[in-house]
Amino acid sequence: MPVTFSSRMSRIKASPIRDILSVAARPGMISFAGGLPARESFPALEQLTFERDDLQYGPSEGEPYLREQVAKHLGERGLHVEASQVLIVSGSQQGIDLVAKLMIDEGTRVAVESPTYLAALQVFTLFGARYVPFDIDQLDETLAGSPPKLLYTIPTFQNPSSRVYTQQQRKALASACDAKNLLLFEDDPYRELCYDECDRIPVCSMMRGGNWIYQSTFSKTIAPGLRLAYMVCSPELYPALLKLKQAADLHSSRISQRLVGQILNAPDAQVRLKTLQHLYRLKRDQFNDALSTHFGGLASWQIPAGGLFFWLRLNTAEPVDTMALLSSAIEAGVTFMPGEPFFADGRDAAGYLRLNFSNADVEEYDAGLSLLSTIVEAAI
Amino acid sequence: MPVTFSSRMSRIKASPIRDILSVAARPGMISFAGGLPARESFPALEQLTFERDDLQYGPSEGEPYLREQVAKHLGERGLHVEASQVLIVSGSQQGIDLVAKLMIDEGTRVAVESPTYLAALQVFTLFGARYVPFDIDQLDETLAGSPPKLLYTIPTFQNPSSRVYTQQQRKALASACDAKNLLLFEDDPYRELCYDECDRIPVCSMMRGGNWIYQSTFSKTIAPGLRLAYMVCSPELYPALLKLKQAADLHSSRISQRLVGQILNAPDAQVRLKTLQHLYRLKRDQFNDALSTHFGGLASWQIPAGGLFFWLRLNTAEPVDTMALLSSAIEAGVTFMPGEPFFADGRDAAGYLRLNFSNADVEEYDAGLSLLSTIVEAAI
Repeated sequence: MPVTFSSRMSRIKASPIRDILSVAARPGMISFAGGLPARESFPALEQLTFERDDLQYGPSEGEPYLREQVAKHLGERGLHVEASQVLIVSGSQQGIDLVAKLMIDEGTRVAVESPTYLAALQVFTLFGARYVPFDIDQLDETLAGSPPKLLYTIPTFQNPSSRVYTQQQRKALASACDAKNLLLFEDDPYRELCYDECDRIPVCSMMRGGNWIYQSTFSKTIAPGLRLAYMVCSPELYPALLKLKQAADLHSSRISQRLVGQILNAPDAQVRLKTLQHLYRLKRDQFNDALSTHFGGLASWQIPAGGLFFWLRLNTAEPVDTMALLSSAIEAGVTFMPGEPFFADGRDAAGYLRLNFSNADVEEYDAGLSLLSTIVEAAI
Repeated sequence: MPVTFSSRMSRIKASPIRDILSVAARPGMISFAGGLPARESFPALEQLTFERDDLQYGPSEGEPYLREQVAKHLGERGLHVEASQVLIVSGSQQGIDLVAKLMIDEGTRVAVESPTYLAALQVFTLFGARYVPFDIDQLDETLAGSPPKLLYTIPTFQNPSSRVYTQQQRKALASACDAKNLLLFEDDPYRELCYDECDRIPVCSMMRGGNWIYQSTFSKTIAPGLRLAYMVCSPELYPALLKLKQAADLHSSRISQRLVGQILNAPDAQVRLKTLQHLYRLKRDQFNDALSTHFGGLASWQIPAGGLFFWLRLNTAEPVDTMALLSSAIEAGVTFMPGEPFFADGRDAAGYLRLNFSNADVEEYDAGLSLLSTIVEAAI
């Protein structure tokens, strides 16, 4: 029998990432699609232990020991917060859901980079957002007009562009949010995956009186399968976010929290992070070499200073719809992320590819990029 | 600076359960408040192992092995579904969030038992529901008028009343949903906690063409700290629920899924469940004895055939506001759940207490109920 869903369901799309990931998992497929960490980067679990009490219901805020660890970690990175401002959530995706619930009604204007993280667009759109794409170097111009309520940004190793804001750009963004009473939502999943010196101080630490929410995740530095991330926010927002967290899933897995707490506290925690950065720096450089071989004349790109992605702009007179290339690529045995779904508005969206270098083996780079370049060449 | 939240935030309340639970965790407090399982019922974790691949991102649907186990389990209980209809979620609370997103706009009418599970009311209200309280024995009368789109029910060991629908009532409910094109949302967390013979076949198995969603949880039979539950639904709803799950948290903790999969598959799984039922039957009987001693003249109640709660109606000429008793009780060292928040409409809401018997030690029953009866007596 036909069922009438809520009106928001007319706006929901499956995340193209998830669809491509299920293809990417096929045996023999070379995947440059998702932002999957390298399997070899995962911590060993054998030494870790649980408390029997971890099996009982726990606090919605998260485990006290983990909230303390997060507050300490953030303080060392320039964002000085109390443990009482930390909310443990079930992955960054949940953080985005909570912020959307907190702020977005049908028609609410949300300022975003364009391109930006497509799963954030997916959730904001579900709740009825309209987008105001902003340019960090033209904040006043691009934020003029009907004022947005919320600004979503990934200032450090942005997804998909891998762009990093300079210290000056960070200050300008914080000032603009303060001045315009724009709630700043800073998503910072890649911060620790840094391969070259660059500015990384959280923009939220530069806010002077305005409201802000900062989130980061354990998915990229520890393991995504645990589904664990954290949010911190200006104190007056905390009670509302906490109620939304309660209503969403009561609290996050206490087993996941216990594992992360132990991994963060382990004597080798710093060494693990250095090793991870070293591994990914090497992979980035080797991926860049393979790209130069196969895409030298076909596309242009910046070498990312951190994060997990290369963002390629195809060198074509006419923009190429990269969504249309995907099925040929999958048929040939390689996946990538087309650029189009990352754009909040359709404008200038064609002609980009996002390529992940962390998940594939180095030995697959040449074969995969060779296949992909053949498909791109055939299309242009 | 003041921040303007979304309009839905004017409707959010903190769950009184969560607030009372944090009080209940104070040392020395005797808690009859939350639906916390007995600590001694938790499985041993020492023998359990993980796969390294569990640390990577996983499928939004849930782990294939766990979906197979759930489909098999439900088939044995009379609800015949394919594994492809199973969606693993991060606790029943998330299931409620997903259904609310799927179905509820501001003003959408939702049929509910009154009283019913207060955290479901919390989420439905956040999304803008209006309530149509229904009476299982007067379905046509109570569902007449402006038609609801969604019906939420806990047919087996209902929370808070512990009521169980008979086979005939189940059939009548399914027929009414079929006839009225009402989406049936059956929440079944307590089904396995059965102490006396009674009807327990899922109402969803009796649907003939109408749409339905059934959910149950591993929180009560295995451990709530893992935050793991599952949903099954009529096939045409699955794609929409899956997209909502993706948007909510990508997928549930794979470590939690691995633990639950192993516990369900363990040779002693059936023995564990029998032991749990035996433990809780004993606790129920001892709680009932203590109740008779302390509340014999003060209140009336049914002995629950399953689940975790006694639902007391105070024997007073004038209804007593049990919310008002709570602070005195906490001061005296005992907690309970006032009845009022369980009612969808304020009507006849006063004068009830929900008392949980699974979490407190048997040795605490007498002391706790003695304290509580003194407070109630003083109030009436």
